[in-house]
Amino acid sequence: MDLVYALDLAGTLVFAISGAGTAASKRFDVFGALVIAFVTAVGGGTLRDVLIGSQPVGWMKDPNYLLVIGAGMLIYMIFRERILRLRRTLFLFDTVGIALFTVLGMEKTLDQGLSGGIALMMGMVSAVFGGVVRDTLCNVEPLIFRGEVYATACLAGGLCYLGLNSIPEAQTYALLGSVVLVFALRTLAVRFHWTLPIVHDRA
Amino acid sequence: MDLVYALDLAGTLVFAISGAGTAASKRFDVFGALVIAFVTAVGGGTLRDVLIGSQPVGWMKDPNYLLVIGAGMLIYMIFRERILRLRRTLFLFDTVGIALFTVLGMEKTLDQGLSGGIALMMGMVSAVFGGVVRDTLCNVEPLIFRGEVYATACLAGGLCYLGLNSIPEAQTYALLGSVVLVFALRTLAVRFHWTLPIVHDRA
Amino acid sequence: MDLVYALDLAGTLVFAISGAGTAASKRFDVFGALVIAFVTAVGGGTLRDVLIGSQPVGWMKDPNYLLVIGAGMLIYMIFRERILRLRRTLFLFDTVGIALFTVLGMEKTLDQGLSGGIALMMGMVSAVFGGVVRDTLCNVEPLIFRGEVYATACLAGGLCYLGLNSIPEAQTYALLGSVVLVFALRTLAVRFHWTLPIVHDRA
Repeated sequence: MDLVYALDLAGTLVFAISGAGTAASKRFDVFGALVIAFVTAVGGGTLRDVLIGSQPVGWMKDPNYLLVIGAGMLIYMIFRERILRLRRTLFLFDTVGIALFTVLGMEKTLDQGLSGGIALMMGMVSAVFGGVVRDTLCNVEPLIFRGEVYATACLAGGLCYLGLNSIPEAQTYALLGSVVLVFALRTLAVRFHWTLPIVHDRA
Repeated sequence: MDLVYALDLAGTLVFAISGAGTAASKRFDVFGALVIAFVTAVGGGTLRDVLIGSQPVGWMKDPNYLLVIGAGMLIYMIFRERILRLRRTLFLFDTVGIALFTVLGMEKTLDQGLSGGIALMMGMVSAVFGGVVRDTLCNVEPLIFRGEVYATACLAGGLCYLGLNSIPEAQTYALLGSVVLVFALRTLAVRFHWTLPIVHDRA
Repeated sequence: MDLVYALDLAGTLVFAISGAGTAASKRFDVFGALVIAFVTAVGGGTLRDVLIGSQPVGWMKDPNYLLVIGAGMLIYMIFRERILRLRRTLFLFDTVGIALFTVLGMEKTLDQGLSGGIALMMGMVSAVFGGVVRDTLCNVEPLIFRGEVYATACLAGGLCYLGLNSIPEAQTYALLGSVVLVFALRTLAVRFHWTLPIVHDRA
């Protein structure tokens, strides 16, 4: 359980760093960049909490999330140049992060007594919507809506979690199995340039 | 009551198809188009539920809405070319849809013990804000803020609903009367090119 | 207490006028401009209420806010040209407005039993996010993320409020002290062109 918490914070940190990077590409000031880092890191979970009616929202109850986001902002500003060289490490934590955000978001939704299908959607919202809010506030089209197999990996991981969880003997491995699946799918997708088909508006 | 439910689902379907069309004009991938179809169809009602504090939000309690949205997405992808020829039918359902969304949104707000004025606003939010969220996520200016008499028709329908509902003898006709009024106003507005005045920023 | 309420309404009025002005620069129609005036004036407080779980949101319980926003819209449309000459008066009320929105937002958050740090964030959200939603709906980059020392003044005012509030003898002056501080900081910042550093994305 402590490992899950640590990985959750690590995912939050990486999301915050990526948010700071997007804000920097827009030449926002320090306050603007901090806001973008913040919404990138906790925007998905916040939207989930508001939709399922679990308020005050999660990060209000644990100051560590705020501290980690502030740290992400500082890390970006200080190590800006080195971060580009750390892309592989960041990709690793980001992928573990979305996998965990998916599963933890599902667990929170199921705890509210909602169905598995809604939990699946809320898991994806937790993992993916921080980036959507980031892009909307930065006035660019959400990245997630084009190309990369990102939300699809979360969907597969979420389905795997529901499946393993429904088998009493496999429950212990549900979290691990889903995270590994999301990780494998996204890594393979990036490596082999898998993309989703585009929806056309004419023949 | 069953007719109202069926028309509500029909309105949801048409909103989802229109959302998929907007996403296609942006060349989003399948996942992105599904998200846009979803927020177009249920975004207004979701915002209303969050503002009045009725959570978990409505579509979490009835899987039919999700199924209808998925169907709308499929219909768009398969019948893309024919849909353009069905414009009149879609316009019809879309107009019945916004009329119903307005009235059902008002009923839900009144049930929460809120005033008629707030119910009127929340009825309009239910009908109109799905489109606003769709346009914001697609990074275009909300269509609704320019030109078409759309929200105004919902406002008139909502006022009519409040009025008829306050007369004991007329209550039975409140829903029907409001829907007919919204339908008539919007059809006339499109036919005779009625538009709202623009607000200028200089003389 | 009546003075606080009057100033709160005055701040709301000025925010609504500024929202109408932004909509006019986009040539929105009357309905669109009214929506923008509305979200500018109450968007920040609405987001705060939703995040802390205080629903129905604040303006649903007091029709005066809606009336003041309608009045702001009318004032903009009628006195458009003269308003430009009143810039100093508007700046004064706007600055008193954000100071008050900050402190009142903090009080509401503390009343919900949340911590001082969260109250500080929610105070800033109350003061600042109406403008962010306005800019997002108008499809422009949020002004607040670049340049002006605006949120920073709210932050300083909020810290001052927490500080004075923790000293029993100074509690009576907490509101006044914070408002004066926000006012002084923002006025000095505009006069001497203080800006926050920009975050760069390369060396």
